[in-house]
Amino acid sequence: MNQSFRTKLNSKSFLTEDFLLQSNAAKNLYHSYAKDLPIIDYHNHLPPQEIAENKKYNNITELWLKGDHYKWRAMRTLGVNEKLITGNANDEEKFLAWAKVVPSTVRNPLFHWTLLELKNSFNINSYLTEANAAEVYSACNELLLQDDFRAQPLLKKYKVFFASTTDDPCDDLAWHKSITAQNIGIAVHPAFRPDKIFQIDNRNFFTAYLNKLSRASAVTIIDMDSLLHALQQRVDYFHENNCRISDHGLNQMPSSPRFSAALEAEFKKFLANENAVFSDPDAFAGYVLLQLSKMYYAKGWVQQFHLGPLRNTNSRLLKTLGADCGVDSIGDLPQANALAYFLNELDKEDSLTKTIIYNNNPADNEVFAGMAGNFNDGTIKGKIQFGTGWWFLDQKDGMEKQMNALSNVGIISAFIGMTTDSRSFLSYSRHEYFRRILCNLFGDEMERGLLPNDEKWMGGIVQDICYYNARDYFNVS
Amino acid sequence: MNQSFRTKLNSKSFLTEDFLLQSNAAKNLYHSYAKDLPIIDYHNHLPPQEIAENKKYNNITELWLKGDHYKWRAMRTLGVNEKLITGNANDEEKFLAWAKVVPSTVRNPLFHWTLLELKNSFNINSYLTEANAAEVYSACNELLLQDDFRAQPLLKKYKVFFASTTDDPCDDLAWHKSITAQNIGIAVHPAFRPDKIFQIDNRNFFTAYLNKLSRASAVTIIDMDSLLHALQQRVDYFHENNCRISDHGLNQMPSSPRFSAALEAEFKKFLANENAVFSDPDAFAGYVLLQLSKMYYAKGWVQQFHLGPLRNTNSRLLKTLGADCGVDSIGDLPQANALAYFLNELDKEDSLTKTIIYNNNPADNEVFAGMAGNFNDGTIKGKIQFGTGWWFLDQKDGMEKQMNALSNVGIISAFIGMTTDSRSFLSYSRHEYFRRILCNLFGDEMERGLLPNDEKWMGGIVQDICYYNARDYFNVS
Amino acid sequence: MNQSFRTKLNSKSFLTEDFLLQSNAAKNLYHSYAKDLPIIDYHNHLPPQEIAENKKYNNITELWLKGDHYKWRAMRTLGVNEKLITGNANDEEKFLAWAKVVPSTVRNPLFHWTLLELKNSFNINSYLTEANAAEVYSACNELLLQDDFRAQPLLKKYKVFFASTTDDPCDDLAWHKSITAQNIGIAVHPAFRPDKIFQIDNRNFFTAYLNKLSRASAVTIIDMDSLLHALQQRVDYFHENNCRISDHGLNQMPSSPRFSAALEAEFKKFLANENAVFSDPDAFAGYVLLQLSKMYYAKGWVQQFHLGPLRNTNSRLLKTLGADCGVDSIGDLPQANALAYFLNELDKEDSLTKTIIYNNNPADNEVFAGMAGNFNDGTIKGKIQFGTGWWFLDQKDGMEKQMNALSNVGIISAFIGMTTDSRSFLSYSRHEYFRRILCNLFGDEMERGLLPNDEKWMGGIVQDICYYNARDYFNVS
Repeated sequence: MNQSFRTKLNSKSFLTEDFLLQSNAAKNLYHSYAKDLPIIDYHNHLPPQEIAENKKYNNITELWLKGDHYKWRAMRTLGVNEKLITGNANDEEKFLAWAKVVPSTVRNPLFHWTLLELKNSFNINSYLTEANAAEVYSACNELLLQDDFRAQPLLKKYKVFFASTTDDPCDDLAWHKSITAQNIGIAVHPAFRPDKIFQIDNRNFFTAYLNKLSRASAVTIIDMDSLLHALQQRVDYFHENNCRISDHGLNQMPSSPRFSAALEAEFKKFLANENAVFSDPDAFAGYVLLQLSKMYYAKGWVQQFHLGPLRNTNSRLLKTLGADCGVDSIGDLPQANALAYFLNELDKEDSLTKTIIYNNNPADNEVFAGMAGNFNDGTIKGKIQFGTGWWFLDQKDGMEKQMNALSNVGIISAFIGMTTDSRSFLSYSRHEYFRRILCNLFGDEMERGLLPNDEKWMGGIVQDICYYNARDYFNVS
Repeated sequence: MNQSFRTKLNSKSFLTEDFLLQSNAAKNLYHSYAKDLPIIDYHNHLPPQEIAENKKYNNITELWLKGDHYKWRAMRTLGVNEKLITGNANDEEKFLAWAKVVPSTVRNPLFHWTLLELKNSFNINSYLTEANAAEVYSACNELLLQDDFRAQPLLKKYKVFFASTTDDPCDDLAWHKSITAQNIGIAVHPAFRPDKIFQIDNRNFFTAYLNKLSRASAVTIIDMDSLLHALQQRVDYFHENNCRISDHGLNQMPSSPRFSAALEAEFKKFLANENAVFSDPDAFAGYVLLQLSKMYYAKGWVQQFHLGPLRNTNSRLLKTLGADCGVDSIGDLPQANALAYFLNELDKEDSLTKTIIYNNNPADNEVFAGMAGNFNDGTIKGKIQFGTGWWFLDQKDGMEKQMNALSNVGIISAFIGMTTDSRSFLSYSRHEYFRRILCNLFGDEMERGLLPNDEKWMGGIVQDICYYNARDYFNVS
Repeated sequence: MNQSFRTKLNSKSFLTEDFLLQSNAAKNLYHSYAKDLPIIDYHNHLPPQEIAENKKYNNITELWLKGDHYKWRAMRTLGVNEKLITGNANDEEKFLAWAKVVPSTVRNPLFHWTLLELKNSFNINSYLTEANAAEVYSACNELLLQDDFRAQPLLKKYKVFFASTTDDPCDDLAWHKSITAQNIGIAVHPAFRPDKIFQIDNRNFFTAYLNKLSRASAVTIIDMDSLLHALQQRVDYFHENNCRISDHGLNQMPSSPRFSAALEAEFKKFLANENAVFSDPDAFAGYVLLQLSKMYYAKGWVQQFHLGPLRNTNSRLLKTLGADCGVDSIGDLPQANALAYFLNELDKEDSLTKTIIYNNNPADNEVFAGMAGNFNDGTIKGKIQFGTGWWFLDQKDGMEKQMNALSNVGIISAFIGMTTDSRSFLSYSRHEYFRRILCNLFGDEMERGLLPNDEKWMGGIVQDICYYNARDYFNVS
């Protein structure tokens, strides 16, 4: 193997203040319009407990590598032993193992993210390599001892104004209550994600979950009515605790939200008799999801659908490490018909609430951008949103493709922009990344005569996309 | 909401003579080779009646917004009330509502189209905004009083040389006869679009349509033979009236063009007995379409297949406004196998006529570009055409992707180029848009050393794509 | 038709030494790092006989046009009569027919390839056109008389270090033995491609092939066990003859590799009784392929899967000319689920060998790039590879898209790079093409501040992709 990139790298990285801004117009847009706006992070996976406890991190590995399956995948691809990734190596060894492969991650978003996150959080401006890894490890850990690097100050450093976590319907939201009680100056709200209720094809998992739901809701679940009653109770409870957003992760939308009397009876038997089988999981998912969507509409919530990944492909790692261990990828199931059908079922009963649809396969960008337009009804700007580049698409190329599809097939000025969808407090640099990419796209076209070369006009749209649209959409002003 | 783009905009727009032309080579190609060629618009939805009557328009709303579901979708997305879109607001209110959102349509093709159409038709060079909307409305309406702005002069202003409308097989083509009799200096011909005959799964609609077809053809339709006889009669009739082109809009090609004796019998019963059901709509569609294709071949027509949209997704608006109301989008059904099968069925009997295949999902570009090559047989240049970016793809990004896929997987020099597929007389600016984009692509690569920097050579190919290939393909010289 | 590009073209072509290199950084990367590296061509379709016999070619048509279905398709699309393509015209007429259309192939890879191949092999620097065709034909043919232009020196001229052909399991590898015995200074090894064994739905073909396999392996095949025994014998035999690579061409991966006792019995009957039918070809293919993959793992081979084309679409040409006659194109079947399932079946038994997955539809790029990451296990760098742009995607646009998808969703520094997949000795220029495109991508991003502007670092990665990664992956150092 060629060794040249393993040499010591002392140079400053390319992260100047004009990173990604390839034209003067782009620079003006970013520095004068986008940069200083607060962050509305309407969908993420931050742990509420860490915010509530204002957690202090033992070291950079704990804050930055634990649970980061993006980095894990990269390390496995680059031939790093699992021991140094998720195994029993110590935290410093794991950090060194990561640092060693960073120079080989060029052109993957991890490379840019690494630079941005080290710079914005720890003021480290050089490339991370094997050569400076020990030094960087110490420097970061020293900073993490300071109160300024606890969970809450990290959010404030990035000007986070609103953050919505992702929570199970059975959650008692105790940590969220604690956050609210602390009045920390950032609105941190829960979001309702009932994915587990759809796994009826896995009886043990499903009945265990129903028991949990039953306890949380104080509703005995013996049939569809009582199930929906329990879910309504949780929706009410979440609403009382500031939740205004729901989220759903699905490979595809259920193909039909119809549920016959026969299925009702079958479902009842399924709950009563542990040997019974439920014959139509898709109809169950479709019906329950439709009823949930109506509950969201009644409450004025925003609903989100994250569609299309292929999850848990590697059963060996899944068994060892559990879900979210870096063995999910991009699926290629058809999406359009079922999604149109579902949204229309709601729209025709005037029960379609504000909705964000996210795709995981970039080949579906135009399908999703077009779908949103079918159900925009003039009641509010951008009621149905084609969501920002997500998961594997949350990188420069993916974001640009999403913005271009949205522009060409939809209306980008109505876009609510970026959200991190991240588990990490350091990921807020991705909002900067998004803003730079957005300004670069607009600035380039201003200079090429494709967009009006009018800084106020374009800057206003940039600001809408970075902040004001989301503020209005989520009513968080 | 950020308000900055609502300020008055008096500046000239960016529509200079070099709009979209980013290199000197591109400018030379466009101005010396492409710009002045006549237009062959081989597929559109212009109303023959308006041409025959040389219609005078009451105002710009009637000419420009009525029936334009592209604009309707944009307005709905930007929060405009339906009353101001398709409702009972007056024409001026509707124009003002549109003007108000135009500045928010940047990066959507509507923004460029709006500028081009106002400039080329009405010599208005500034951006259209809320601030100048009333002024623009008056100025346009004043011009529309002049005879120069009737339907026929509008076509002539754009140098339209040949235009093919889209007509139902039952049409008596009276307006077309009138146009021909007037000898207006533009060849305006009908095209044969038998889509309604395939809707056998909607009995009431289907039988009503068969009755209409029966009357038009003077053939009593009682079985497959008589149905085909009626269709043949209409093909003959259209041919006598200068039709040389057919068109078909389908989600997917039928999967099999085989029709058994049992299905023949079932079809006969279905026609005779209003309670009978026809069990295999796909086989019916496949068989009828195959027979139609053979009729086209016998006449030497060109056949077109527009594949892949997802239509009428929003049943609420569909009920209120009818089809083509802006609630169609991009589908993701598989296309390759059925399309290959159908074309091969014709080719193997030596009955495959000149064919244009259009896709609606850009993810299918390479599939379509490749498919064309399978059935080109050396008899004529570009016999099977991968059609130009259509509907949602009829914009800069979509056109460029189509041209690139066609270039890389097929042969762009054999391409018959642009057609508007539009209902509007103002859409002819899209030929200019196409030509500028084409010249820009070629010019850029000439300057970067990817194409020969030979203006005559490249200019010749540009001219073929803009005019000569279509002239030869449709025999309209 | 516009005639301007038919004029005589004497100018030098644009093939300077900086062809495709649009920045100084790109030029440095290419000239200082990439250009001079040897070629590892780990997958091609070169005829071993021609190498073993060190074939002398009668003329440029024999070397360059025979069997080249890329050129055939282009000629058919441009209206050339089949007689001049695959018919009974003489070789000079065929060459002239090709030369005549070359100027019309601009923007298709054939145009660049033509220039590169004529320049690199015959030192012809001008465009090929009708005007100079006769002259070029003579000049090439004169050179082909020289021993320097036999098969082996052609490979050496391109610095081919390792080449893997594609061979049927029944092949006796006599030509390969001869090549090895000649010790020609290039490692030319066979690869194992058992595609024919999967065609169980074509009984006559299948049983004829089993007979051949039975003779080659000296195993009487009467059931699944003996079939696998025969295949194992051929794997062993290939291994003894330096084979370390297998390859498979499939529309899709089989959906399930499970094979029941009932299917075993049915298969046995199917072999014994010529009227018996085998009911589940997909399960047969899945099971046999899974067992083969385990054999490859046991031997330490690399396995390749070429997925997704739509083959033999045109039955008329297929009947006349046989397979590979230029009537294959790009399919759109779903790929993700079956591929994940298959790879996981192997991984969970710890039997997943090094694997390269190639897609034929660019819409699947991200699916494939993501899939590889699911099964990389840290044992070796880049164990699962997303293969280079293949067939219709083996062009600038396709290669760039593959590299971008691989970069964004995977790790490009672990990429084993280019292989020709070609039948022609002249195709080695495509490695140069690939390297220029790679250097251009990296160089551009270095200059735009997206990649470190560090020539050694980036040059090292370029060298890994062009040579060192493949050398390590295939153990050919």
